[in-house]
Amino acid sequence: LLGVILLKKNSKLNKSIKEVGEREIISLIQKNLSPMPKITIPFGDDVSAFELDKKKLAVIKTDMLTSKTDIPNEMSLWQAARKAIVMNVSDFASKGVKPSAAIVSLGLPNTFSLKNVKEIACGLNAGAREYDTYIIGGDIGETSDLIIAVSLFGTSMKKGIMQRKGANIGDIVAVTGQFGKTAAGLKILINEINVLPKLRKPLVSSVCFPKARLQEGLALRASKSVTSSIDSSDGLAWSLFELSRSNKLGFLINKIPIADEVREFAESNGLDPFELAFYGGEEYELVITLKSESLEKTQKNLEKNGSKLIPIGKVIKEQKMFAIINGKKEIIESRGWEHFKNIG
Amino acid sequence: LLGVILLKKNSKLNKSIKEVGEREIISLIQKNLSPMPKITIPFGDDVSAFELDKKKLAVIKTDMLTSKTDIPNEMSLWQAARKAIVMNVSDFASKGVKPSAAIVSLGLPNTFSLKNVKEIACGLNAGAREYDTYIIGGDIGETSDLIIAVSLFGTSMKKGIMQRKGANIGDIVAVTGQFGKTAAGLKILINEINVLPKLRKPLVSSVCFPKARLQEGLALRASKSVTSSIDSSDGLAWSLFELSRSNKLGFLINKIPIADEVREFAESNGLDPFELAFYGGEEYELVITLKSESLEKTQKNLEKNGSKLIPIGKVIKEQKMFAIINGKKEIIESRGWEHFKNIG
Repeated sequence: LLGVILLKKNSKLNKSIKEVGEREIISLIQKNLSPMPKITIPFGDDVSAFELDKKKLAVIKTDMLTSKTDIPNEMSLWQAARKAIVMNVSDFASKGVKPSAAIVSLGLPNTFSLKNVKEIACGLNAGAREYDTYIIGGDIGETSDLIIAVSLFGTSMKKGIMQRKGANIGDIVAVTGQFGKTAAGLKILINEINVLPKLRKPLVSSVCFPKARLQEGLALRASKSVTSSIDSSDGLAWSLFELSRSNKLGFLINKIPIADEVREFAESNGLDPFELAFYGGEEYELVITLKSESLEKTQKNLEKNGSKLIPIGKVIKEQKMFAIINGKKEIIESRGWEHFKNIG
Repeated sequence: LLGVILLKKNSKLNKSIKEVGEREIISLIQKNLSPMPKITIPFGDDVSAFELDKKKLAVIKTDMLTSKTDIPNEMSLWQAARKAIVMNVSDFASKGVKPSAAIVSLGLPNTFSLKNVKEIACGLNAGAREYDTYIIGGDIGETSDLIIAVSLFGTSMKKGIMQRKGANIGDIVAVTGQFGKTAAGLKILINEINVLPKLRKPLVSSVCFPKARLQEGLALRASKSVTSSIDSSDGLAWSLFELSRSNKLGFLINKIPIADEVREFAESNGLDPFELAFYGGEEYELVITLKSESLEKTQKNLEKNGSKLIPIGKVIKEQKMFAIINGKKEIIESRGWEHFKNIG
């Protein structure tokens, strides 16, 4: 029997990473790492954090952009480099933490010119300065693909840091913006779909010039009303399922915030706007839960600075996800963008 | 005239990165980044550091290993992953700072199996635990080469952190071990040179299982006698030239610490042992300067824990590097391992 078990285990390890997808790979890696004792935010949240002293946390995060999967042809090197910063800042934003400094490991194909390198440096710097942070170190190496691995560092008071866990039944689910634009934009770029310029511009721009909701994240944390928080870099559905898993609770989504351009794009191309809004990715809105009695006050606070907080549903006891689509309550499937698995 | 200048500048930017080498690329990147105000250790040292408060520093570093240039065929994935940690720890060691936590961006070719991934995770963990640190976060993505981009984080008292700058005329130059083994080991692995097993083993092991001198770095800092410090990951000559540049001073090296195995390997293969010791790389000894009156006491302190501190020369006013080779004073050229330039 032991032989059979070992054989099974080994045959599983012989599987190609293409067969299993990102989450199973990450889970295997985590299983083989010794956990840091008394860590405040371990694996499985948007950032990692540990105590600097009794009140203060060190917060760190790394997220890598690779030309093999993450950079559509139309995206410039400047945009790609800026985006590599933005996607890390978005994770800090979702915890309500201001980043202090970034370091960058850059893998460069040897066909690159100095001009290409300058464009990348300028894009990195633009991204960092946009969120009032600095790039203070890095490394370069030779690689087949362009690789931009950014690590972000910041400090935070332990008290009030927003985590994925903490939602309660009856809390409101809310988001900082509308969804579906990057999914539509990626379809335009990858499938070379022709659309009118007035649609093309905002949809492609959401892919090539994304923005992190740092101001919103800091304001949400200051409101003290948020019970759980995540960014939506792997899609709205994925973010909701992550919050659901972390909290062992479910959601009833009654109003899906789909951008007008997305509805128009979907209609003229025979696509499902809900699909675009739910299962997109590379979108950097924050998805939070908050106490229902604090919604109005928190919304007003965010609006003061030109930001939005859109309620989209509520937290329910049953660990499932439902959405009201065209007046009908439907169950939402657990899927979203996953590296490796989504590729050929 | 302005036209000519602009033309010249542009033609320089049109150059391929292969033509210019790592240092010029890094310098171009730095020129295009906004410097963080009041940073304690900016670009150009082994780590970056900025103030957490008046007494304490945040110390960060990223160093990337790529299969395209950094992983010889004989090196296992476990060894490569462990080495990716070790090379970052070495930079912390050279500043006398203990790392607290690491995060890793991992680029995986889609031909990898879960077994390959497990081996990498175990290697990363082994490297981290060897130096009493933990891997607390990371990211994975699909890449053509294997990419292991490690970022290391730690805190340090501001007082006493060892930097590249600080050497004085008359200081002793000292190192924590002998040189040349990795240069010899890499020749064995890359040029497939046949050698006796008793030579092969230690030389190849220095490449595949390097060690960071963290214990030595912490003890050296505690000794309060060190005036400047660097690790030797780009070769002994390169490290000395970096210290020379940072301090605007020179060195007279009177005793080059070459490992016995390196002398033997060089002799039987018609190679120059000084070349192997000076212009190697991927070696993780510390190269420091210290007050001459403190040498003996510092040596004794290090020997208590089984470590070594070998004096190899002294700091001179003239910003040049001389070495006594076979009884003759020779001038040493400024060169060492450089990515991109050294490749076809």
